[in-house]
Amino acid sequence: MNKSLIESMDINIGLIGLGYVGTGVFNLIQHQKEYISKKIGKDLKIVAVAEKNIGAKKDYLKKYKDIKFTENAYELINDENIDIIVELIGGLDPAYEFIISSLKNGKYVVTANKDLMAVRGGNIFEEAEKNNVDILFEASVGGGIPIIGPLKTSLACNNITKIVGIVNGTTNFILTKMKDASLSFEKALKMAQDLGYAEANPASDIEGKDSANKLAILASIAFNSRVHYDDVYREGIGKITSFDIQYADEIGYAIKLLAIGSEENGRINVRVHPSLIPKSHILASIKDTYNAVYFYGNYVGEIMSFGKGAGDKPTASSVVGDIISIARNYDRNHKKKIFGCTCFTSKPIMPFIQTTNKFYMLIDVIDKPGVLAKIAKVFGDYQVSIQSMIQKQIETCDNARLIFITHNTINKNLNESIEKIKKLDVVSEILNIIRVEDLEKPN
Amino acid sequence: MNKSLIESMDINIGLIGLGYVGTGVFNLIQHQKEYISKKIGKDLKIVAVAEKNIGAKKDYLKKYKDIKFTENAYELINDENIDIIVELIGGLDPAYEFIISSLKNGKYVVTANKDLMAVRGGNIFEEAEKNNVDILFEASVGGGIPIIGPLKTSLACNNITKIVGIVNGTTNFILTKMKDASLSFEKALKMAQDLGYAEANPASDIEGKDSANKLAILASIAFNSRVHYDDVYREGIGKITSFDIQYADEIGYAIKLLAIGSEENGRINVRVHPSLIPKSHILASIKDTYNAVYFYGNYVGEIMSFGKGAGDKPTASSVVGDIISIARNYDRNHKKKIFGCTCFTSKPIMPFIQTTNKFYMLIDVIDKPGVLAKIAKVFGDYQVSIQSMIQKQIETCDNARLIFITHNTINKNLNESIEKIKKLDVVSEILNIIRVEDLEKPN
Repeated sequence: MNKSLIESMDINIGLIGLGYVGTGVFNLIQHQKEYISKKIGKDLKIVAVAEKNIGAKKDYLKKYKDIKFTENAYELINDENIDIIVELIGGLDPAYEFIISSLKNGKYVVTANKDLMAVRGGNIFEEAEKNNVDILFEASVGGGIPIIGPLKTSLACNNITKIVGIVNGTTNFILTKMKDASLSFEKALKMAQDLGYAEANPASDIEGKDSANKLAILASIAFNSRVHYDDVYREGIGKITSFDIQYADEIGYAIKLLAIGSEENGRINVRVHPSLIPKSHILASIKDTYNAVYFYGNYVGEIMSFGKGAGDKPTASSVVGDIISIARNYDRNHKKKIFGCTCFTSKPIMPFIQTTNKFYMLIDVIDKPGVLAKIAKVFGDYQVSIQSMIQKQIETCDNARLIFITHNTINKNLNESIEKIKKLDVVSEILNIIRVEDLEKPN
Repeated sequence: MNKSLIESMDINIGLIGLGYVGTGVFNLIQHQKEYISKKIGKDLKIVAVAEKNIGAKKDYLKKYKDIKFTENAYELINDENIDIIVELIGGLDPAYEFIISSLKNGKYVVTANKDLMAVRGGNIFEEAEKNNVDILFEASVGGGIPIIGPLKTSLACNNITKIVGIVNGTTNFILTKMKDASLSFEKALKMAQDLGYAEANPASDIEGKDSANKLAILASIAFNSRVHYDDVYREGIGKITSFDIQYADEIGYAIKLLAIGSEENGRINVRVHPSLIPKSHILASIKDTYNAVYFYGNYVGEIMSFGKGAGDKPTASSVVGDIISIARNYDRNHKKKIFGCTCFTSKPIMPFIQTTNKFYMLIDVIDKPGVLAKIAKVFGDYQVSIQSMIQKQIETCDNARLIFITHNTINKNLNESIEKIKKLDVVSEILNIIRVEDLEKPN
């Protein structure tokens, strides 16, 4: 084939899933077709769409008569003319089967499926490798923000030692409103639901599951070792109260749900939990539904990307970006990986209980002399070292409220000390325990 | 060649320039060789280095006996075994000749040369295209921050309508110290020089030339139309005083040297100048030598990248990232472009004088009744609409100091009004005029 024929080649796309994101991708490709063609010298052509509820999409069927619409994804997967399968149905099954079958058929795959990549990423890459094709999944983390691509190209020479991300827009919105509009958790959640930022069942976001999936994906790439969703320690934001937000603010901290990955002496520490971070840190300025991911690399130093972490258009932007990455160098007769799997090693996951953190603790105690000594003794017994303690005024006059900030403490020791402190007769209630991240630059 | 042979293939690199960045790249490749090899399945091998002052690099010659060191770059350019030429001498000539010759010889080229790409980028891309190879230049903008790669891949489907960047670390350091340490411009510049952040002759940074080069490169990619260094309107930070910093702060603004590009009705507006920006905007939190680039795309929305904009290691990170992008899919027998030039159209540059801005103006006047009316009349005559006016206390008691903030005003009108106002007998001195950018989201 001569050069001009190759360059004017159509890239035939099969789209599985015409839901919120799928429709976004469909519309983007239709609207930007000419623009993309001028830019990359190839036409992105959606030739077929599989959608199980195709009956609800009659306007699309009517408008796009040269596109095949079907309820059966395998009509796309087994179509020899299709070059790239775009999987946008989400969830584990049947998305997994669709992707594996597509790879077996020698098709490149693009997906936004974070659940699947965080749980079965290894198997999927193995299948891609076997068939000399690739799977791209930029949209699975951070919506429209380019993160995976840069990690696998521009930043690829770096040993990444730390990731700190705000990767869930729903919880960031809730925490922002709790702070800026002084809403309770329940009211902020309701507001997020009313605005369409949180689902009717918000568990996946609130409990940090969504963030844990994204962290597993990022950590696998950053540390070159497969990290599974189950490897990630996870706490949600449901326990954060207006008091925590207010007290944190008073002592110079914002509260964010962070996804944190680090490599420490060849072992991987991955965790999602609410965190007090210094108000002066750039991550504290990431508000509402925005996402941001911070990396530390041994050559590049600190690097952060910020943008919209969800929504049909930003997510479609990343999906089509992946399609473009494949299309640019697509050669039907000589398929090969673009980035491939970069997990060339296997590093153990640190047992969370053995890792260290700083803690903020909010404890109501009986207001009488000697209370602090009793609590301090228990902390001392468990090597929990206190950095600061502040007493707050509260309404019930026979109680006092104490805010402790600890130095770095082994989680196991902290847990054990808290079990003891709970049982002290001078302690009325342990209101909350939240980790503190000072986010200093790693060495 | 079978697959395993291809995958174990060395990528032979010729490095031109062993100065600050060149040495950084050399060291990075040597130290990360094994890591990169595991990640991409190919070995990056520096086979030859050209350095005009090779006598000063005796320790390298001694240590790396299997690498050829020469003073003659053409020994690399004409070496059939070299796959990629990395040009790190900077400046226009002879870098241009080296790059053109390399491309003619069918070699891929990686460069960090912003001056050259901003001035002769078009010619260089033309030569690359002719020879079915590519030139990559991620390190030319934002040091270690991935910007060009994401624009050409993950974000490629977007029409970018606006770029706002802090792309010069030296000036950002100076402005940060003027604000946070209350230094004068001169003292802050001296501090930057003492710390090695500013050169002995700091003109290129201070006068905004460095930023203008980077903006020309970014705008060319973002707007798909070649923007030349000379197209960029440019003002430096030399005129910013401690007063400006202090007054801006009082009215809710930070002062930053911004590189701003926008597409307005098919025409391109590109400018580098100090700007008052709201303290609440994320760009106001970019301090010291850090860089950040903000984009607005029609699908992705707002997106920002942040990191170290200079230094040998961050810059080397991007240079080697480009080498990796080439190496991943390198096929000696079938060379082709990776991204190629994306300037597929030609959009006119807006004459700066016809563009609009908001302005901050600091004017000392004789302190007597009727002064404001005289000034306001001139502004009114030239359609300069005033958003706010504040009078400041100053030491000379017969003078008053006025801070004006205008609404959007055509630059031509503003200039003409100022010429008139200068001549008013009630005006003692026009201390400064700085543009104001509210950085609201574009439509």
